[in-house]
Amino acid sequence: MSPPERARKTFDLSRHITAAVGAQKAYVPGDQPSESGWVKLNTNENPFPPSPRVAAAIRAELGTDAASLRLYPNPASAPLRAAAARYHGHGLGAENVLAGNGSDDVLNLLVRAFADASKPAGMLVPSYSLYPVLSGLNAAAMRTVPVGLDGVFDTAAVAASGANIFFLTNPNAPLGIAFAPEKIAEVLEAFDGLLVVDEAYAPFARADAVPLLTRFPNLVVTRTFSKAFALAGIRAGYALADAAVVAALDKVRDSYNLDRLAQAAAVAALEDRAYYDGITAEIKRARDAASAALRGLGWRVLPSEANFLMASPPSAVGKTPAETAAAVHAFFKSRKILVRYFPSNPVTAPFLRISVGSAREMETLLAAAAASADADSSSSAADAADAAPR
Amino acid sequence: MSPPERARKTFDLSRHITAAVGAQKAYVPGDQPSESGWVKLNTNENPFPPSPRVAAAIRAELGTDAASLRLYPNPASAPLRAAAARYHGHGLGAENVLAGNGSDDVLNLLVRAFADASKPAGMLVPSYSLYPVLSGLNAAAMRTVPVGLDGVFDTAAVAASGANIFFLTNPNAPLGIAFAPEKIAEVLEAFDGLLVVDEAYAPFARADAVPLLTRFPNLVVTRTFSKAFALAGIRAGYALADAAVVAALDKVRDSYNLDRLAQAAAVAALEDRAYYDGITAEIKRARDAASAALRGLGWRVLPSEANFLMASPPSAVGKTPAETAAAVHAFFKSRKILVRYFPSNPVTAPFLRISVGSAREMETLLAAAAASADADSSSSAADAADAAPR
Repeated sequence: MSPPERARKTFDLSRHITAAVGAQKAYVPGDQPSESGWVKLNTNENPFPPSPRVAAAIRAELGTDAASLRLYPNPASAPLRAAAARYHGHGLGAENVLAGNGSDDVLNLLVRAFADASKPAGMLVPSYSLYPVLSGLNAAAMRTVPVGLDGVFDTAAVAASGANIFFLTNPNAPLGIAFAPEKIAEVLEAFDGLLVVDEAYAPFARADAVPLLTRFPNLVVTRTFSKAFALAGIRAGYALADAAVVAALDKVRDSYNLDRLAQAAAVAALEDRAYYDGITAEIKRARDAASAALRGLGWRVLPSEANFLMASPPSAVGKTPAETAAAVHAFFKSRKILVRYFPSNPVTAPFLRISVGSAREMETLLAAAAASADADSSSSAADAADAAPR
Repeated sequence: MSPPERARKTFDLSRHITAAVGAQKAYVPGDQPSESGWVKLNTNENPFPPSPRVAAAIRAELGTDAASLRLYPNPASAPLRAAAARYHGHGLGAENVLAGNGSDDVLNLLVRAFADASKPAGMLVPSYSLYPVLSGLNAAAMRTVPVGLDGVFDTAAVAASGANIFFLTNPNAPLGIAFAPEKIAEVLEAFDGLLVVDEAYAPFARADAVPLLTRFPNLVVTRTFSKAFALAGIRAGYALADAAVVAALDKVRDSYNLDRLAQAAAVAALEDRAYYDGITAEIKRARDAASAALRGLGWRVLPSEANFLMASPPSAVGKTPAETAAAVHAFFKSRKILVRYFPSNPVTAPFLRISVGSAREMETLLAAAAASADADSSSSAADAADAAPR
């Protein structure tokens, strides 16, 4: 700011910030480069545009002069909630749907309503790194239960975790593996608290937990428009749950959390199942092809039911698997290919998480994966392993 | 939901919801009727459409097939924050701006970072009824300082309130009266905590608190696109503050709280000052004309520097001022005119809060105000005061 004309008051921020927020580190999302030219396979965005009905619905809401934007949106997102209930069936009604400004908004509302200093949260490790940020901001402890690279975790450990609310990402992110509905039902039976099955990637999987809502009032299923619906840019998601749980979350929700254009876009997307079935099938084919190709290059690839692959490059000579993954991550970046790397957990450190992009992006990625091996061999030959790109 | 095939698990929600959320009543926004035909003067929306540049910017972001919507928005809302800093000047930079999903999102972040069970919040009464909902949801006490219908409040009472964060709505809502910058500076000098000057209505006032940011690191100014910018439907607002305060709020903020279309719309709005200067001048003229007209009908109208009037109808025979206001509120509703009524506070109960709408809407409102007096006289004459519309 410009030089003060009068003495500036002193203000010790550290005395005034709450203990929970003061202690919490911010969540770090994946890189979102603003310049073009990147092959962006780091935040699991959809390579296809949204349904043509989305653009049409937004244009219809805009009209000629965007006059409707002067008015507040429907505070309850009523048409969107009704559309989501119809989309899923299973006897769900709008009262079973809570709409959020992205599913991250929904996750935040869940933490605020069900976790605090006296009510711990819980999660599988590894899974979505936002959960502990949200619980920390609400002064809640986070209980963790390990999940193996084989997708096995201990139901009894969840039940005994002491968590009041437990987050189960299914398919798991970043692993990509899916848990069977029977396993989810087993956890719902055994666990006393609220189980949130975060289904951000469920449209790419063989099964989902929605049918279990009929039997389990302690189940919340969360969904997003950011992945399968190709609408990360509009910020919309929702929770499916018992009406009483939805009513509790609604007390914490901002009255106008979804704007007019996002509501219109989300409804249009839900109403074009044929389009999304088509692009989802395409992504699954590309995923399985890329998985086979990486395995052909000697990578270890976990079985994925999501729109990304968790894949570990073959260890370079004289390097640990984690060092190899870090080097390939950097090599990809040098070729303007962004993938996600989670080095802080030893389980995930040997892996890269690679979003399934367009056919052309996957070609570029696979060529770089092949080149990374060559780059390593040649530099090993030159005895310059430390400077090697892998 | 459909009948369960197997026994439904029992789940006692009251055992699992946090104490803060369990105890809190939800905020009730003004009616947003979904059918048309209403003269909607209850939520201070702008009667004019947004700048033509807004629709153009949204269309440009959409392109032909809305393909950009498959990608996450700029997580930091960087272009919007830079545009807001340029808009205000006074040496502010993007690091002094926090963007929110409406200014309600910004207010929520402020409460979460600066109020909890050990750090009370504070507010003037009457003012925005969302503040105590937000503080209650974060388990924070709310300290109140009364403000009179003459706009007078005690600076020393704010300083002695024990609040860690204090909300000062300026111009006040629902009163519409504005506090002078010298008064705000006096509070900033005397108060030890963070002072939030909620300037949702400042573009309609003669002065604002932005120049005080240079001297006071304990000042936060909040702004919205919902009122003067005619963009209630896109959900955008921001805070201006010391960079360290912005960084603290950023830890609580959702990574992608503003969608792509909202960011584009808000930037376009900030860059068309000429258009908004024009419609703001028009609204102020209409406000002052309606104020004079209501006074001509015997109403008491507080001096307004906002886009609404706080106005009390002349008391009907045999009725208290609050009963009269309730009856006129109901009479307006019977004519499909929505205005806002705050009966729970004795200070506001004799008043109706009337948004400044289009010329035609104000004609309809004034005709109804005149008719409400006639309706009352005739029904008084018929000795049916209880059933009378006023």
